[in-house]
Amino acid sequence: MVQSGRDVAICDATLALLLEVGYDRMSMDAIAARAHASKATIYRRWPGKQELVLDAVKARGVGLTVAEDTGSLRGDLVATYRSAVHGSAADDADLIAGVLRAMRTAPELADCVRSQVIESKCDVSRVIVARAVARGELPAETDPLILHEVASALWFHRVLVVGGPVDDAFIAHVVDDVLMPLLDRSSRSAELQETQ
Amino acid sequence: MVQSGRDVAICDATLALLLEVGYDRMSMDAIAARAHASKATIYRRWPGKQELVLDAVKARGVGLTVAEDTGSLRGDLVATYRSAVHGSAADDADLIAGVLRAMRTAPELADCVRSQVIESKCDVSRVIVARAVARGELPAETDPLILHEVASALWFHRVLVVGGPVDDAFIAHVVDDVLMPLLDRSSRSAELQETQ
Repeated sequence: MVQSGRDVAICDATLALLLEVGYDRMSMDAIAARAHASKATIYRRWPGKQELVLDAVKARGVGLTVAEDTGSLRGDLVATYRSAVHGSAADDADLIAGVLRAMRTAPELADCVRSQVIESKCDVSRVIVARAVARGELPAETDPLILHEVASALWFHRVLVVGGPVDDAFIAHVVDDVLMPLLDRSSRSAELQETQ
Repeated sequence: MVQSGRDVAICDATLALLLEVGYDRMSMDAIAARAHASKATIYRRWPGKQELVLDAVKARGVGLTVAEDTGSLRGDLVATYRSAVHGSAADDADLIAGVLRAMRTAPELADCVRSQVIESKCDVSRVIVARAVARGELPAETDPLILHEVASALWFHRVLVVGGPVDDAFIAHVVDDVLMPLLDRSSRSAELQETQ
């Protein structure tokens, strides 16, 4: 966990250098200089560059963190994706592009980012689906991994490839044109099986 | 269009340098040296760096190009995505990560790549949906843009974020767990409207 103001300054310096020079050429000396901290201070908190980048990315909190509870599946999806959008999409896109580039040159960083940052967001989808199942909106066998994969893919595609804003209109498009039809389809096929 | 062996060498040199030094620091001099070509030769074919990168990316043919015709919607989707996978996914991922990075620093390149490379792939989805509509597998109002967006997003996410192979198992997952249910849902809701 990143807690103190000094930690925040070190994480900010790490992300700034990651974008400017890339993961491979970023040194702990340069991070210390940029953050006005001593290397000893940094090494007391983080064993190395990889752990520092990972914490810095986590601290920036890009993506989903909280499953909002609104009383309906559609409401939960829209509110959760809205609460995940903060700051400018352009900043997020630069950071994501920088991290993806770093992941290509540092496989051990890639494994950490995937397991600790990307896959952990999956819990949000699990909570939303479990609530909808409890309310009777979805059948018990609904797979939250599909919801997670499709929502995550559409978000990355929007930010990195299309380069458009993740605004209310885009969130409504994702929820109403893709996710709800996809989840509703699972629900219908389960109903059909039950009545047959 | 890239035609001659010399053109291919120039395009290969362009992509290699794009990955090594990035778009901003890549010079026409360096491309000429790497391709063993004169700058005059390059400028006779391409007005500048941006046009050259765009042609090189197109020539590499990453992604969908041909809508395979198998006689069924599911067959067309599987065959089309299979034919789009060639060479190693790791090479493609490096190229895509390099191009996305270049797009972030060169907005005019980003516009070209989006309109001429990414959006043109949309035609493949249009052809597949039109054939399925003609066969009676999908209602006439099926939106091919949704198919294109979701398939494209899942492919980018797999290659760049998850870092997994785009193999037969992944293609079957995309088609059977996401695209067919999504298209089938559109088809069902249209049937319901017709019978009401």
